[in-house]
Amino acid sequence: MKDMLGREDVKTAETALKLLIDNLPLKTLKEKNLKIEDSLNAISSKDIFSSEDLPAFKRSTVDGYAVKAEDTFGATETMPVYLNLEKEIFMGQMADFSLSEDGAAKIPTGGMLPDVADASVMFEHVQIIDDKMIEVFKPVAPAENVIQKGEDVKKGEIIIRRGRRIRPQDIGACAGVGVTEITVYEKPKVSVISTGDEIVSPEKSLSIGEVRDINSYMLTGMIEESGGIPLIKGIFKDDYEIIRDVMETSLKDSDLIIISGGTSVGTKDIIAKIIDDFGSPGVLFHGLSLKPGKPMIGGMINGVPVFGLPGHPAAVSICFEIFILPILNILSGLNEKFPQYSRRIVKAKLSKNISSTQGREEHIRVILEEKEDGLWAEPVLGKSGLITTLVKADGTIVVPLNVYGIEKGTIVDVRLF
Amino acid sequence: MKDMLGREDVKTAETALKLLIDNLPLKTLKEKNLKIEDSLNAISSKDIFSSEDLPAFKRSTVDGYAVKAEDTFGATETMPVYLNLEKEIFMGQMADFSLSEDGAAKIPTGGMLPDVADASVMFEHVQIIDDKMIEVFKPVAPAENVIQKGEDVKKGEIIIRRGRRIRPQDIGACAGVGVTEITVYEKPKVSVISTGDEIVSPEKSLSIGEVRDINSYMLTGMIEESGGIPLIKGIFKDDYEIIRDVMETSLKDSDLIIISGGTSVGTKDIIAKIIDDFGSPGVLFHGLSLKPGKPMIGGMINGVPVFGLPGHPAAVSICFEIFILPILNILSGLNEKFPQYSRRIVKAKLSKNISSTQGREEHIRVILEEKEDGLWAEPVLGKSGLITTLVKADGTIVVPLNVYGIEKGTIVDVRLF
Repeated sequence: MKDMLGREDVKTAETALKLLIDNLPLKTLKEKNLKIEDSLNAISSKDIFSSEDLPAFKRSTVDGYAVKAEDTFGATETMPVYLNLEKEIFMGQMADFSLSEDGAAKIPTGGMLPDVADASVMFEHVQIIDDKMIEVFKPVAPAENVIQKGEDVKKGEIIIRRGRRIRPQDIGACAGVGVTEITVYEKPKVSVISTGDEIVSPEKSLSIGEVRDINSYMLTGMIEESGGIPLIKGIFKDDYEIIRDVMETSLKDSDLIIISGGTSVGTKDIIAKIIDDFGSPGVLFHGLSLKPGKPMIGGMINGVPVFGLPGHPAAVSICFEIFILPILNILSGLNEKFPQYSRRIVKAKLSKNISSTQGREEHIRVILEEKEDGLWAEPVLGKSGLITTLVKADGTIVVPLNVYGIEKGTIVDVRLF
Repeated sequence: MKDMLGREDVKTAETALKLLIDNLPLKTLKEKNLKIEDSLNAISSKDIFSSEDLPAFKRSTVDGYAVKAEDTFGATETMPVYLNLEKEIFMGQMADFSLSEDGAAKIPTGGMLPDVADASVMFEHVQIIDDKMIEVFKPVAPAENVIQKGEDVKKGEIIIRRGRRIRPQDIGACAGVGVTEITVYEKPKVSVISTGDEIVSPEKSLSIGEVRDINSYMLTGMIEESGGIPLIKGIFKDDYEIIRDVMETSLKDSDLIIISGGTSVGTKDIIAKIIDDFGSPGVLFHGLSLKPGKPMIGGMINGVPVFGLPGHPAAVSICFEIFILPILNILSGLNEKFPQYSRRIVKAKLSKNISSTQGREEHIRVILEEKEDGLWAEPVLGKSGLITTLVKADGTIVVPLNVYGIEKGTIVDVRLF
């Protein structure tokens, strides 16, 4: 495909992402220790083993009586089995006694079964005769109503694999086997450099001709949401020396660099030149068969991925989703089982025809509407420079590369914001 | 339906949740101010207005020439229109000049159009004759390639409604109109009280008969993930006085109280009695047609929702999802457009028959497997007391109240963890 200057080097989003990943050097990611209660959403950097059995002893799963199962065989409503009530087991206490033939011990849910017992009879299937004897109306099988020692976790077993995002139940499992601190990857640091002679900080009162910095702030949220640490480097003039200087300092403290706003005709050549001037491989792609996001630049400097994003908020959002998020996931050490389901996706019917240019992957913002016949997706056809098209939208749909458009009524996947 | 003691008061999950919501008093939620860069995922407590137009001036969306559209009418490849190049507009600078008849000014993307110009011609449709004249090959319509003053946001317009979870693009929109601080609801505080004579803290080395506190730690993660602040109150003996005392202090600093572990026969009556003894309405339900989660208790003390959860991790997880999360959302001030899509859901084919008791809503943990013919959901049929069934599972499916089971091969909704 041809680029904006008629050269044959406009890449598809897929090719461009592959190029980035292929050029990403294998680095040893930094690790740190975290208390389990502080580790929600962190990424485990080691397989987490259990050094003990969970549970550490044989437990009853019901309120009832610990028995030898064979003593209950043949019990029925009309022909109950009689057992001697010999002991009572209390929660949290060791059950280090034996039972005589046809003996039973009262046990609460979670209580420890004595070695000799292999099942629990539920209260509901027992009639108490007196404080020495019970009638059992229903037999239990060996192991019935019992959790065996180590049935949940065996000593030496891996409970959480390396590269997994820690969920609440993972924290619970660590607590359960006495793991109170885990090793996780440090979050990748992402520098955000805003360029543009017209861009000013949001707190400044505007002079005519100036606009406030939207993208640095939106990117801060996106980076945080994606498990990175945003480093806001500020707003810089569209000048080779100035931008090169801030890139140079950013290369020292960042795992990824985003330059926002400098890729239109006026300045895109500055950004591309700076990336190339830092050395090989430099710019990997410049110009994509993607809308919005066409003039995007992707490159690599000393193993640090560098992105030059168009100034339009919608383009920034799409470029982040397609390129920066997958790279950030790699830099985070994430090894998810189903990375494709990491976003919320709903099906909806398209409310109007969408036309698209063949040979270009188009991302369209949509508003969801709940109607009597289900969910509908209404395209927001505003200019991609408008931040409110992103604020009004509930998500985006994708018109693939080799499709001319999508017809009204078609079921589409909406990737929710 | 009958409860465990044969009384007719076992409620469905739906009825129980409605009862809770109906008894939840309308409270004025506390608010606080946050800098926009710190507000990701906070809930806006006021409509956020813009006090200015965005953009504050008429901007070009292309690199090209600011013109009066009518001067270009009729232009073609063979019969171009000639315009006088009178000025050059620079980024961030005011364009307070006029254009003569057939006049044009060079303009970059984002540059300010002078009052007299109403459209921009793209570079691609222009041939430069010399530094005084250009040829235009294609007419532009009025407003073409221009974003009008206030087209993104009008002065006085609401940009974010009250009750919305702040997303990255919302932060961007605030920055764009100079709103650098917003008012959000304070996060609800949730006390977690763990009960059980056998329960000990995870860092303790175990004596036989003791088990570590899994649920407090899992709940910490779930509360945080749901936008609440967990207050871990510790582990308490199954004793009326002791639990009543910690409930009393928790009522002073909490918006919601969770008691975990005290609802089996041994202690459930203590929890229910304490909740009732604090006054009306007290216990709202005790025992549900739900699996896991059957012995759950829900109540209200002085307007504070109180939950007694079964000790089994899987039951805790389901009860949290069904009851605590919706109540926490109300206490957070959340007013989402599509609360039903707040979780990630994928479709998968069930890999084996599941039987279920009619009259009971059953939640089943599943492992997802990607096969050649698509995604399959494999039920994890372990005991709900095992934390690892939750760790291994990728999500849960629901067998509704009045269904006997689901057949192998049926497409089911998997709610991902």
